[in-house]
Amino acid sequence: MIQVYTGNGKGKTTAALGLALRALGAGQKVLLIQFLKDGKSSELKALKKISGFDFKVFGKKGFISKNNLTQKDFDLAEQGFSFFQKAMGSRKYDLIILDEINVILDFKLIKTEELISLLRKKPVKIEIVLTGRGAPKKIIAVADLVTEMKERKHYFRKGIKARRGIEY
Amino acid sequence: MIQVYTGNGKGKTTAALGLALRALGAGQKVLLIQFLKDGKSSELKALKKISGFDFKVFGKKGFISKNNLTQKDFDLAEQGFSFFQKAMGSRKYDLIILDEINVILDFKLIKTEELISLLRKKPVKIEIVLTGRGAPKKIIAVADLVTEMKERKHYFRKGIKARRGIEY
Repeated sequence: MIQVYTGNGKGKTTAALGLALRALGAGQKVLLIQFLKDGKSSELKALKKISGFDFKVFGKKGFISKNNLTQKDFDLAEQGFSFFQKAMGSRKYDLIILDEINVILDFKLIKTEELISLLRKKPVKIEIVLTGRGAPKKIIAVADLVTEMKERKHYFRKGIKARRGIEY
Repeated sequence: MIQVYTGNGKGKTTAALGLALRALGAGQKVLLIQFLKDGKSSELKALKKISGFDFKVFGKKGFISKNNLTQKDFDLAEQGFSFFQKAMGSRKYDLIILDEINVILDFKLIKTEELISLLRKKPVKIEIVLTGRGAPKKIIAVADLVTEMKERKHYFRKGIKARRGIEY
């Protein structure tokens, strides 16, 4: 199955992490591929202690914006994509999470069609989870499950900054 | 802060579990109180291996329905509520997750006003996360962050059953 968590609300990456935890608890093998992020999130520290979990980060420090993309951003996205392709082909994992991939697609750092044609070759038993805002319509179309996280209220709007252990 | 994850889409409990993971990774202490569930979910097996994590389950096997509540359901909800009250008072935890509490409130197994008056006494540094469908409006009002998980697509509708390691 292909699961998508998108929308502007908090909970997309954490939902994927919770799925990782559940799969690991059931004895499955999990791979987390994080785009955009720099690998310093607290969750990785905790997950690393659980056997059956692998992760790889293809991001850099700081935020990237759609109107200010660099060659480095394209390179990292492409590297992450190739890594995913190999990992899926290895059939080593039961669950592969592509964290923030929707943003990568929305920013056109990877062509949506390219990812879709790869997803079509997915071995049946592998579960794939795609997270991030702005999931393209074509991704929604190929997914088996789509949850939109809608922000109804957020403390960021009150000026509260991201907190370690809560947001990262 | 008080965070609420509600709505009919997949990802509410998993988002809370992901938050637990992140908090644990940052060295915080986490308590998960699960209502409705019977404690056999895979995620608990994985979380138990991480130090700083405690959990307690106040549920029973099988689904409960709003129109068919038993004394046992009221008793379990009440016990869970008292347990939460003590746990919050102990100041032992940085993050307390009340999993499926929104359903408990929606089913009137606990009075929403009772929970709210307890939440008003919350020590500032404790983060509380409430999950479950049907969060009452009064809960939305007191929360600092609310995400509604909206189902846009779900494979259950195609007749696929809950899978171990993915749904529980």
